[in-house]
Amino acid sequence: MITFNRQEIIDNYQYIYKKRNEIEKIADDMVEKGFDYLFFTSSGGSMAMMDPFVFYLNQLSDIKTEGMLSADYLILDNRKISDKTIAFLTSKSGDTKETVDAAKKLKEKGVRIFSAVGVEDSVLESLSDDCVVYKSGRPQELIFYILIFRIMNKMGYFEDYEDFIDNLEKLGEDLADVRIAADEKCIDYARKYCKEPYNIWIGSGDLWPTTYSYSMCVLEESQWIRTKSVRSPEFFHGTIELVEDDVCVTLVTGEGPTRAQDERVKNFVEKYSSKFTCFDTKDYDMPHIKEKYRQYLSPVVMNAVLQRISKNIEVITDHSLDIRRYYRKLEY
Amino acid sequence: MITFNRQEIIDNYQYIYKKRNEIEKIADDMVEKGFDYLFFTSSGGSMAMMDPFVFYLNQLSDIKTEGMLSADYLILDNRKISDKTIAFLTSKSGDTKETVDAAKKLKEKGVRIFSAVGVEDSVLESLSDDCVVYKSGRPQELIFYILIFRIMNKMGYFEDYEDFIDNLEKLGEDLADVRIAADEKCIDYARKYCKEPYNIWIGSGDLWPTTYSYSMCVLEESQWIRTKSVRSPEFFHGTIELVEDDVCVTLVTGEGPTRAQDERVKNFVEKYSSKFTCFDTKDYDMPHIKEKYRQYLSPVVMNAVLQRISKNIEVITDHSLDIRRYYRKLEY
Repeated sequence: MITFNRQEIIDNYQYIYKKRNEIEKIADDMVEKGFDYLFFTSSGGSMAMMDPFVFYLNQLSDIKTEGMLSADYLILDNRKISDKTIAFLTSKSGDTKETVDAAKKLKEKGVRIFSAVGVEDSVLESLSDDCVVYKSGRPQELIFYILIFRIMNKMGYFEDYEDFIDNLEKLGEDLADVRIAADEKCIDYARKYCKEPYNIWIGSGDLWPTTYSYSMCVLEESQWIRTKSVRSPEFFHGTIELVEDDVCVTLVTGEGPTRAQDERVKNFVEKYSSKFTCFDTKDYDMPHIKEKYRQYLSPVVMNAVLQRISKNIEVITDHSLDIRRYYRKLEY
Repeated sequence: MITFNRQEIIDNYQYIYKKRNEIEKIADDMVEKGFDYLFFTSSGGSMAMMDPFVFYLNQLSDIKTEGMLSADYLILDNRKISDKTIAFLTSKSGDTKETVDAAKKLKEKGVRIFSAVGVEDSVLESLSDDCVVYKSGRPQELIFYILIFRIMNKMGYFEDYEDFIDNLEKLGEDLADVRIAADEKCIDYARKYCKEPYNIWIGSGDLWPTTYSYSMCVLEESQWIRTKSVRSPEFFHGTIELVEDDVCVTLVTGEGPTRAQDERVKNFVEKYSSKFTCFDTKDYDMPHIKEKYRQYLSPVVMNAVLQRISKNIEVITDHSLDIRRYYRKLEY
């Protein structure tokens, strides 16, 4: 299995899981001090990484919350924000321009800022009231599972918090093994479709952000593969007409409440395209996770699966995932 | 000028404008009876048509509002909805399945339902407390300019309401003349790019829904042209890497607050693609509209411009805008 180190995945997972107490203290302090609104803002793949938590908050609680691109917040402002608001931002480099500018603007408004950043001593960290530096820690979502589900729990929602996060202790092993289980299918997919001129990617609910960001921030950005991503129910309002026998269509589906939307897509596309693939989190065992918690983990499981596509594509096409035409090579 | 009848456009506009009093009465009654939340829900292009009004409400008022796809509402519900909520739905046929099912669910919850429907005696109309049947009336947005801006006005926002809607009286003429002014550029665009294998469409703010829906519900659905649509600031987080000299990129830009996001895209793409086009509402005169109101009209102006692309493409490619492979030809 290429570009894969099981122990490293487990170690990277543990790097974040060991911060459980530190993160829980932040959550407890947020609840104790009180807030009127939880505001998530970032850019690109970082925003997409946080989007599922807005989804879970809306599903599981009455806590007022919203996500907004930092570029939009900077121009449009947000009338719901007050000095009782808590903002959540994330950036791997800690210096993404719009995200940093959003943090500055939020700080001026007296908003409490939480950030998750990949490197130490970043500008974003310096602007934050609370910051988790995750370095090689993966997946970053784990920070938010602990933080956001703890907040919900302390606010009287999601009673199962302790048991849920206890369950996650060995999720790193499961996510490594999901990769092993998915690799053969992903190699096959990568070989067949790495040269396709156009790829329709479809997903829904808490997996829509994964669909959006994997196709744009991985396939487009680092493999220069052309994609169109669309939400499962929206597929039927236009993109459906592009489906022909030789059009490559990829569906990602998870265990959250919108699975039925994906099944409708599957039932249709598998009849009309011979280049249809469905990646389904249900196909992967997670021995450390109770059945009832799997529904909240679709994004991290699906990302583990999809990573095997990109890790294989970069070798098959001899196009490193790190090559860019423009990003951080030019000013724009 | 093909498939164009100036008088018909003006008459269709007037068909809705003449309902001004009727629509204002509905708005006044909504404000008088009170509400806790304005909820917009529909599917595909109909949802995209209403999305700018969520944008304007958020920009101009503190009224609690949100948009949600009907397919998502049906599965995920929405904890903010109460029997004091008003819901807005629209469907040309009045029988779009998810939209009708959402109306049924909303009715059960005691929500006041407003709908805009293209035909008389539809299921959606029968489920609505208030319904505007627009028949050949265009653009449907006019119903919402009157309804939503009147609600804002009566709630203490947007003082200029009367003058704004007075200004719109002859917008139909302006929108017909915008089409005339845009036609040459659109013919040229249609001829050059109707066979492109992949088209990147970019837009932002209140024109993002237009970008999304024109590319999906017109180019994809009725011309089987492959597109990828992306928000202007998000373009820089992935899709940018696909830009090469021969990649067709189309930017739509308007006069709303996010124009600077589009200018950043323009400055970049015009350097790296020789197949770059920018459609800009600023290029079109609207003698009946005061400068200060143009910022709210970008979606209807841009739709008038873009319609000239599709009207010309269908003739150039001899592919009628009414042909479908699947929609309403198969069950799915």
